[in-house]
Amino acid sequence: MTPAGALLTDLYELTMLEAYRAERMRGTAVFEMFVRALPPQRRFLVAAGLAQVVDELLALRFTAGDLAWLASTGRFRPDFLEWLQGFRFTGDVDALPEGTVFFADEPLLRVSAPIHEAQLVESRVLNLLHYETIVASKAARSVLAACGKPLIDFGMRRAHGAEAALLSARASYLAGFAGTATVEAGRRYGIPVYGTMAHSYVQAHATETEAFEAFARAQPRNAVLLIDTYDTERGARRVVELARRLAPEGLPIRGVRIDSGDLAEHARRVRAILDDGGFPAITIFASGNLDEHRIADLAAAGAPIDGYGVGTRMNTSADAPYLDCAYKLQEYDGLPRRKRSEGKATWPGRKQVYRQRDASGAWTGDVVTLASQPLDGQPLLAPVLRNGRLLRAMPTLQDSRERASREIAALPPALRRLEPAGPGEAVAARIAEPLRALAAELDASA
Amino acid sequence: MTPAGALLTDLYELTMLEAYRAERMRGTAVFEMFVRALPPQRRFLVAAGLAQVVDELLALRFTAGDLAWLASTGRFRPDFLEWLQGFRFTGDVDALPEGTVFFADEPLLRVSAPIHEAQLVESRVLNLLHYETIVASKAARSVLAACGKPLIDFGMRRAHGAEAALLSARASYLAGFAGTATVEAGRRYGIPVYGTMAHSYVQAHATETEAFEAFARAQPRNAVLLIDTYDTERGARRVVELARRLAPEGLPIRGVRIDSGDLAEHARRVRAILDDGGFPAITIFASGNLDEHRIADLAAAGAPIDGYGVGTRMNTSADAPYLDCAYKLQEYDGLPRRKRSEGKATWPGRKQVYRQRDASGAWTGDVVTLASQPLDGQPLLAPVLRNGRLLRAMPTLQDSRERASREIAALPPALRRLEPAGPGEAVAARIAEPLRALAAELDASA
Repeated sequence: MTPAGALLTDLYELTMLEAYRAERMRGTAVFEMFVRALPPQRRFLVAAGLAQVVDELLALRFTAGDLAWLASTGRFRPDFLEWLQGFRFTGDVDALPEGTVFFADEPLLRVSAPIHEAQLVESRVLNLLHYETIVASKAARSVLAACGKPLIDFGMRRAHGAEAALLSARASYLAGFAGTATVEAGRRYGIPVYGTMAHSYVQAHATETEAFEAFARAQPRNAVLLIDTYDTERGARRVVELARRLAPEGLPIRGVRIDSGDLAEHARRVRAILDDGGFPAITIFASGNLDEHRIADLAAAGAPIDGYGVGTRMNTSADAPYLDCAYKLQEYDGLPRRKRSEGKATWPGRKQVYRQRDASGAWTGDVVTLASQPLDGQPLLAPVLRNGRLLRAMPTLQDSRERASREIAALPPALRRLEPAGPGEAVAARIAEPLRALAAELDASA
Repeated sequence: MTPAGALLTDLYELTMLEAYRAERMRGTAVFEMFVRALPPQRRFLVAAGLAQVVDELLALRFTAGDLAWLASTGRFRPDFLEWLQGFRFTGDVDALPEGTVFFADEPLLRVSAPIHEAQLVESRVLNLLHYETIVASKAARSVLAACGKPLIDFGMRRAHGAEAALLSARASYLAGFAGTATVEAGRRYGIPVYGTMAHSYVQAHATETEAFEAFARAQPRNAVLLIDTYDTERGARRVVELARRLAPEGLPIRGVRIDSGDLAEHARRVRAILDDGGFPAITIFASGNLDEHRIADLAAAGAPIDGYGVGTRMNTSADAPYLDCAYKLQEYDGLPRRKRSEGKATWPGRKQVYRQRDASGAWTGDVVTLASQPLDGQPLLAPVLRNGRLLRAMPTLQDSRERASREIAALPPALRRLEPAGPGEAVAARIAEPLRALAAELDASA
């Protein structure tokens, strides 16, 4: 999307900004975003959304229209609004590169900036990183289940609004999907776009065969025919007849789609009809309420399905539609800070995550520690912005997709399983001793 | 949002359009959007999103940039793309007014238009109506649970992207929320905007009392203090001391917010501290993972809470993050059509819903029938667009909010309960005999 604008934020960010300014509080604040606990339905998360966060931070301005509207509410002092006119994000950002696998308690983004800047961006930073991360993390599971068969995002219609439609196409591609049906996502992010036909197309014609033939003629390079509008096997037999009739004209039928009923059983029967009819190259594409569990069942049943359309459940992350994530102040003006609310206490200070691997590169564990006290292993948070400027070009979506693929492949098999994690099975980062000591020290001095 | 543009659609809509044009198919298609079955967690749905659909239909155009990009994909014939340049929505729309309560199998929107127009809009019509409807339907339950206490939408940060943040503020206000924390939603939709302070504000100060005092001075009309950063009751006692100290200066403390722990227990203790301290007028606002069930529990426990901040679970409709809804062809070129896919068969023809009420105005039942065969009762689908133009000004958001309130109040108590509907308890519309007969006739002739 075009940047959403400075008013896409919670009102309290603005009231706090006015207060910080009244108090002349200008110290550097360090905020970190992290997930408190993974839902049991997820054994790992995949970081996504950083590219959109960076775009928004770089473009963040209060327009004259924004300020005029704020003035019209009568809530803010004119000198504060005048000051907002010069607002720019001038801070530092460190983050997990998109496609990085991560776990609970690991900061995925750190903002160090004058407190009013780091505060204002809270709402939108969470909004973007939370959503793309839940989708990438959900989509990665379908990729694991599909055993190499291509997956296409079909979910625009039930994604939660326009931006969710676009960002879920992006995040699922990052996680290993082959493409999306959403045209605008193809344009914006360079994702391959796929599409077949709807039931309405078949219904609008006097007969199914007429519909199939008209489509094959109109879309000679893209004839994937939807065969379940009336009777799936009868539809498949009509495809065979049509393919025979069109072959002399050099018009191929590329594939069929099945969208209802027992997909494994239908796919087997349709495969047999197509093969017996002499068309082993016509592919079978399946869709309809799919998610990683149904895909795994279809794969386990040996269903002869060549690709899957995955929609709603992926785009809404339906079994875990949100994460318990937060963006919290960890340091202000050089001093570590700790929130101690019941059940919501934070690890204080500026942190880094170290990933430890064995000689083969396989993941063996993560440790969260203070950024000032390096450990062995690979530091995961990397610098992105310094003084409000990009240090280097962001990775391409393709780069991030490859990173996700590598990272997931390097996880131990137990973390790649689809079943919900049982008690004690959830992986969390280890909290290093110096960090525990700092937290205890802050509690004692409170 | 500004209209999302013609490319926010599924690719298959465009490939079908190209095929319809190649076939010279220009007949009038009637599509209806409906929900196949309510999730067990919902006993009724509240229609929302029509205003956004109308805005998009009226603005729908292919820009030169859209067409240039489509051309660059090499998928479409140049004459087709040229023809898209003149695309306008010229059809009719009938719909349930926003705020109308509805049930399974009841069309909430009907589009009658030349088939390429009615087809193209499918993806975005579903995307908008589905999302606002799930949010309004979820939010209405919190309103029922809160027994008249005000509810504020706090959920921007975990809503699924920017548009979800804005539309969920709108849909929850429509369903009876008092306002939102999302500033841009206030500007766009005229919704009251509320806000307090974050934990970071308290943490950034050397002491909690300093933070409270600075905020009360900076926001003298809006001093709602967050008291759970370190210890809730100690926070409340500090509020009492501060309120006493500031009273001579005419600086009031309006309220406190509690965001963690056992909210009922904390609210009782905080209420006692404030009352004993001489401040019975300081209100208590609660937030933190709330939904209708937790609010009902707090109300049942008699917790002295004056208002609720409701976020994530409402904005994502977390217990039912999607509906089994569809936008299906019901008539083409004057002839009724029926999809017969397993488990996904539709009721054919152009339909109307009649709502039946008793003498007191209470809801007694809905009947779905053919639009050509009127029944007793109130017809629910009302004309909105004719030949691509608005028949009359759309209702204001305030009007729709009042409609939702009236409609929900008129439901029988069993439909207003929060517990999931048991087997046989789900309400569905009655399907009138002529409609059943038409479906049987179409099946027989297939």
